[in-house]
Amino acid sequence: MLQTQLRTHTCGELTLSQVNANVTLCGWVQRSRDLGGMTFIDLRDRYGITQLTFNMESHKEQCEKARKLGREFVIQVKGKVTERSNKNLKIPTGEIELVVEFIELLNASLNPPFTIEDNTDGGEELRMKYRYLDLRREPVRKALELRHKLALEVRQYLDKQKFLEVETPVLIKSTPEGARDFVVPSRMNAGEFYALPQSPQTFKQLLMVGGFDRYFQIVKCFRDEDLRADRQPEFTQIDCEMCFVERKDVLQVFEGMVRHLFRSVKNVDIPALPHITYADAMRNYGNDKPDTRFDMKFVELKSPAPNPEKTIDTVSGKNFKIFDTSPLVAGICAEGCGEYTRKQLDELTEFVKRPQIGASGLVYVRCMNDGSIKSSVDKFYSADDLKKWAEAFDAKPGDLILLLAGETNKTRKALSELRLEMGTRMGLRDPNTFSCLWVVDFPLLEWNEEQQRWYAMHHPFTAPNPEDMHLLETDPGSIRANTYDMVINGVEIGGGSIRIHDKQAQAQVFKRLGFTDQQAQEQFGFLMNAFQYGAPPHGGIAFGFDRLCSLFGGADIIRDYIAFPKNNSGRDVMIDAPSVLDDKQLEELSIKVSLGS
Amino acid sequence: MLQTQLRTHTCGELTLSQVNANVTLCGWVQRSRDLGGMTFIDLRDRYGITQLTFNMESHKEQCEKARKLGREFVIQVKGKVTERSNKNLKIPTGEIELVVEFIELLNASLNPPFTIEDNTDGGEELRMKYRYLDLRREPVRKALELRHKLALEVRQYLDKQKFLEVETPVLIKSTPEGARDFVVPSRMNAGEFYALPQSPQTFKQLLMVGGFDRYFQIVKCFRDEDLRADRQPEFTQIDCEMCFVERKDVLQVFEGMVRHLFRSVKNVDIPALPHITYADAMRNYGNDKPDTRFDMKFVELKSPAPNPEKTIDTVSGKNFKIFDTSPLVAGICAEGCGEYTRKQLDELTEFVKRPQIGASGLVYVRCMNDGSIKSSVDKFYSADDLKKWAEAFDAKPGDLILLLAGETNKTRKALSELRLEMGTRMGLRDPNTFSCLWVVDFPLLEWNEEQQRWYAMHHPFTAPNPEDMHLLETDPGSIRANTYDMVINGVEIGGGSIRIHDKQAQAQVFKRLGFTDQQAQEQFGFLMNAFQYGAPPHGGIAFGFDRLCSLFGGADIIRDYIAFPKNNSGRDVMIDAPSVLDDKQLEELSIKVSLGS
Repeated sequence: MLQTQLRTHTCGELTLSQVNANVTLCGWVQRSRDLGGMTFIDLRDRYGITQLTFNMESHKEQCEKARKLGREFVIQVKGKVTERSNKNLKIPTGEIELVVEFIELLNASLNPPFTIEDNTDGGEELRMKYRYLDLRREPVRKALELRHKLALEVRQYLDKQKFLEVETPVLIKSTPEGARDFVVPSRMNAGEFYALPQSPQTFKQLLMVGGFDRYFQIVKCFRDEDLRADRQPEFTQIDCEMCFVERKDVLQVFEGMVRHLFRSVKNVDIPALPHITYADAMRNYGNDKPDTRFDMKFVELKSPAPNPEKTIDTVSGKNFKIFDTSPLVAGICAEGCGEYTRKQLDELTEFVKRPQIGASGLVYVRCMNDGSIKSSVDKFYSADDLKKWAEAFDAKPGDLILLLAGETNKTRKALSELRLEMGTRMGLRDPNTFSCLWVVDFPLLEWNEEQQRWYAMHHPFTAPNPEDMHLLETDPGSIRANTYDMVINGVEIGGGSIRIHDKQAQAQVFKRLGFTDQQAQEQFGFLMNAFQYGAPPHGGIAFGFDRLCSLFGGADIIRDYIAFPKNNSGRDVMIDAPSVLDDKQLEELSIKVSLGS
Repeated sequence: MLQTQLRTHTCGELTLSQVNANVTLCGWVQRSRDLGGMTFIDLRDRYGITQLTFNMESHKEQCEKARKLGREFVIQVKGKVTERSNKNLKIPTGEIELVVEFIELLNASLNPPFTIEDNTDGGEELRMKYRYLDLRREPVRKALELRHKLALEVRQYLDKQKFLEVETPVLIKSTPEGARDFVVPSRMNAGEFYALPQSPQTFKQLLMVGGFDRYFQIVKCFRDEDLRADRQPEFTQIDCEMCFVERKDVLQVFEGMVRHLFRSVKNVDIPALPHITYADAMRNYGNDKPDTRFDMKFVELKSPAPNPEKTIDTVSGKNFKIFDTSPLVAGICAEGCGEYTRKQLDELTEFVKRPQIGASGLVYVRCMNDGSIKSSVDKFYSADDLKKWAEAFDAKPGDLILLLAGETNKTRKALSELRLEMGTRMGLRDPNTFSCLWVVDFPLLEWNEEQQRWYAMHHPFTAPNPEDMHLLETDPGSIRANTYDMVINGVEIGGGSIRIHDKQAQAQVFKRLGFTDQQAQEQFGFLMNAFQYGAPPHGGIAFGFDRLCSLFGGADIIRDYIAFPKNNSGRDVMIDAPSVLDDKQLEELSIKVSLGS
């Protein structure tokens, strides 16, 4: 099937069953060796590597040609498939070689700026500049093959579930809400601009109003944000929406999708996904995307009020001021780390005191193998006190308890970082183990201190939990939203919500977000109008496809799973974009560049 | 599988086999009728229509609720499936009805601005403004279902052929060559701009340099052109490229794809595609995308020199000045139209004289049923002359010959329009008949009179026919390119070429196109550099996916096959985009609007 006018086979398919066949191959010179009367070349294409042999005695001219080839030269060879004497059983073609009778140089190559090997000597920047050479490396090609396969399986699964893939527009309207838009000046509508979509959110909701029942799309989205490491200005989503559903329905379909992907792509069976509320995730892991490959849940020795489940304060009143004044004292128990050295404990203290983590200090309690308990705070707490703590943590001899104290949210966040650090140190975060869960019931709104206004935590179209709706005026912060995030190995892979489908309710939420009626009408009038014409109940979800690919590939960096990624300044260093335009182009678009002071 | 918390079945699936089942449905009120003690409602969702009955006697409350429902109200109903007395065998659910015991209003609807029926009373503009209501109409939904199905089948076919779908970037670099780019100001690189891709051409070539062997992508592309009817600023391509191939390989794979689509989607078997050269297409049909659903090939009574096949001039020297002075006299034979009335012939004359067609007049020769021949030029030509013409056309009694004369290219173009018009009048252009072919060997370059320079007819990466390469300096216009277009029913569905893979050859072509070395380096340096590192021979093709969908749907208008299309001014009238930005947004982007005089 891969036969063409230029080749009969690929470099990945010849085995002993083709011995004596006359074949033609094309590919790149991976490496070559001259051994006296023989020259050996490893010929590479996308499908594999085949060893070529050139015999100086029988085919002098061919052999001399072969000796002149450099790395990455492109050649066509014809010859006979022959059994190898020294077999390489690590590769599928390792039992044969091709004895070459004809060779043609299809294209020469300059010496590549880095080696085309799994472990290349090329640095990140060089590899990005010559991305077309980097793509020849097997790990990069495999990453993009995985991406292809995942996309195909997503489509097949959703098609079977009667989802229709519908393309939504890329040139849409800018809305100030949310992240910053990329914009596109319109030549035909001078002075006006399109925006590139941050997501097809409103369009997929309109498709539901349009009765499409089940929609999906694997689609490019755009966000003009200051790029942190591994953020891309353009990224890909698996975007989905369903009609006549409640949360349970959405979770079932997409839990099914992810389990299908694990089964078909990685041959892994994932158990049913546990559900955990946002509140529990924060209390137990200090994180709305907990890494549950390992347990190490938080234990609170002193809990912030009101918390009916945890009322016993076992730390206050012993003159340890930090614990006395902190609303939260909580920790984790690291199994088997009781014998950590002073140096290791100091490292952990340094870790939590880093500005990104921001704890003021770390309290440890070491449960020694001999049954004794040692702590950095034993001048404040008796052996009995410490024993009670160890019991609260269910700590056994040999375990290490690490405690942080302070303002509730900040402390939970810091303790989460410490928990992840301990998980890494203890080897509990194997990239080839997968732990998936749903985090549900996020708050609907969050308060922005700087701008003194409420923001939608998910987005402004999210339906509030109906029984919380009455709190919209009195206690907006405690309204739970009808949301769900899928978290795998501590990474938020997907998130969504049941949407508002009622114009009145949508108007109320916009109002709470500080939109005037006019602003709401200007920005989302088309959606609110649509809601007046028989909008059905609906909900959906979107998955970060780049991230999903890297997760399946067992990698941390999404950049390797994108064919032509941009760097942290949003530049494509290979094609050197963005770039300046000539004046004529700007004039046609009725814009001027205006570089400020 | 489509069961959710809100419904047990869809409105398209209940049949006699579910009689007596208690079911729950959700959907939209399509229409309702009150008949004394009974109310009937047709409930619609994406999957079909189910008749609901409400009995005033047994379920007064439900029935009264039902009577208050307007068109497009969204409801949930529960009841028992019952056999109908008056069956409607035109729809799958037509043998049953649902006797409703419970009804809940899920959402009300204003009276829709046009009827949600196959033949709506809504005009184009109104339907676009309320596109979410238009999407509820079956023809629109079917069009987008077809699009989904076609995309899926394309992906499955190409995946089987080992093509990898690779996403190429949307934020790329602007190049002045070709059509006008849409551009995107970069905030992080002030004063610089990205461009949106007109096609992923250079990226797919770089993927070939990167050894990907077989690439495809169904991808959005963008062109900022003045929109003629039915052109969209954003459109979708099936974009493909292959390594180590010659033209024959590309044609085979993609002929296979199109035949697969016809078989799987329309259940039609397409015969092997004939190949015709550009030169022959122009001579026989006056058109590089001939509609071959009908024959009606051109016959030349006087051929432009040099044309070794056609040297007999049967029209000159009889004092008919137009024919004497025209390099081309050619016509078509319309079978069975010999008895056209004077009025019909006048209409055809008016047709060819329209400014878009631009012929100065039309000569007709009517082969009467009695064997006589009548012509508009019989004062110049004898019965014998006319008989010779009729023989040249193989015309039989009852046929009509229509002749045009003038400058070669212009006359061919006009005659092509006349041929299509006659095909339409004669009912030879059935949208459900499909005639596919390859047009090959287009000229590499075409001369632009206005700019006094050569332009690439396909694009500047197209490989010239090797045996014509020597004409690059001496006779560029006669170089044939290694190109191919797939034409179906007179529409160019796809086009591609074998590419240049040699830096030297690419530089020569750029030079011939008037690029200085510096310009070539600035705009395409990354590609020419890539060619130095072992670029393999490669070629590819791209299909217009919107057009392909409309062709498969038997429609002329692609707009119906796009979920959210833009109008002829590039506006989305539903969301009212593009729109003005606020000053803060412009300032962040370092641009100013500059509306000229």
